Amino acid sequence: MDDVPVPVPVPVPVRKGRGRRPADEARRAALTATAALLFDGGLASVTFDRVAARAGVSKMTLYKWWPSPGALALDAYFDAVEVTLAFPDTGDLARDMGAQLHAFVRLITQQRGGAVIAELVGAAQMDRDLAAALAVRYTRPCRQLAVDAFARAQQRGQIRADIELEVLVDQLWGACYHRLLLPDQPIDDEFADALIGNLLDGIRPEDSRGSRSAAN
Amino acid sequence: MDDVPVPVPVPVPVRKGRGRRPADEARRAALTATAALLFDGGLASVTFDRVAARAGVSKMTLYKWWPSPGALALDAYFDAVEVTLAFPDTGDLARDMGAQLHAFVRLITQQRGGAVIAELVGAAQMDRDLAAALAVRYTRPCRQLAVDAFARAQQRGQIRADIELEVLVDQLWGACYHRLLLPDQPIDDEFADALIGNLLDGIRPEDSRGSRSAAN
Repeated sequence: MDDVPVPVPVPVPVRKGRGRRPADEARRAALTATAALLFDGGLASVTFDRVAARAGVSKMTLYKWWPSPGALALDAYFDAVEVTLAFPDTGDLARDMGAQLHAFVRLITQQRGGAVIAELVGAAQMDRDLAAALAVRYTRPCRQLAVDAFARAQQRGQIRADIELEVLVDQLWGACYHRLLLPDQPIDDEFADALIGNLLDGIRPEDSRGSRSAAN
Repeated sequence: MDDVPVPVPVPVPVRKGRGRRPADEARRAALTATAALLFDGGLASVTFDRVAARAGVSKMTLYKWWPSPGALALDAYFDAVEVTLAFPDTGDLARDMGAQLHAFVRLITQQRGGAVIAELVGAAQMDRDLAAALAVRYTRPCRQLAVDAFARAQQRGQIRADIELEVLVDQLWGACYHRLLLPDQPIDDEFADALIGNLLDGIRPEDSRGSRSAAN
């Protein structure tokens, strides 16, 4: 809005020497190579050696950017699925939630995403470094995508002002993770729609809200 | 209600021979010994050798009852926490849900139950036998405790007849497992209360149910 150019100090990118690949390109190649290994052979197949060979990136570079193959795997997973997790924002909250949750259901049931993330979450329960990477590189950014969308809906008056938005993440995607990690019931569009319907409108009969008098 | 004695065929317990401990007592000793090992040292500390020594039960007996130490660990965990997971049924749905969920929160945050079940669920992601045992010996009976209580509430007209009760399990305890297994936000009574409030009454403003017109 302000078209007077103000000199703002910006970090100057450090030149890594001539003849090398730009860092962005090398990073992209590493993430793509890692995702391919991960979706094909699981976490055990992600090693710095294999990623370096496949991406044409030096192991030194990988070590510089990622503390462990697990951290690299998590970045690659989030990078690969971020477009699927993106939240549409048409203004129709129920429809936007439905579109996102249906895409998530497809990802974890039909596209091997479920097997990959279940293995990563499982391994993180016994590996402190991987747990830290999971929190920073996957859980937080995923939650933020949803909370940002909910905050817009709350500002539009579609979600009550007293609702804690982080809790909704646990009651939608968290509920799907529950069925993925402690399997018993199906993960499908019908389940996704029930999650959304229960949350939006509640499960009590209309005439018993705030009381206990109603029958059905 | 019917006081005429009707002869019903009951399974006759097989006598295992004189001088042996009754099976129930040996089974109880094995579960208690396993729970002590599990809560103290985690899954790796549960071996048939150690349980046999601690419980005074032969390894042969353990093998007969449990296909693996993981299956034994899961039975012992469920046995140890079942009393905590039991659902009060005073007729006040919101209060009963709150009491149960607060007890569950304490179990997984203050009583090492969270660390134990997180490790079991984590290990199950990479171990088919343990995954099968998890489903049968923990997930299903836990879900059933809650679904039975919800069915009573539904019959009393406190939950709408069109609500799929299994989904509620995922939106209450599943939401807690989400914060346990993909940690980012706190697991506490405030969270438990928000889960219940969101579900019972919904998150939309009253005057926007079924429409999109409301502001806040």
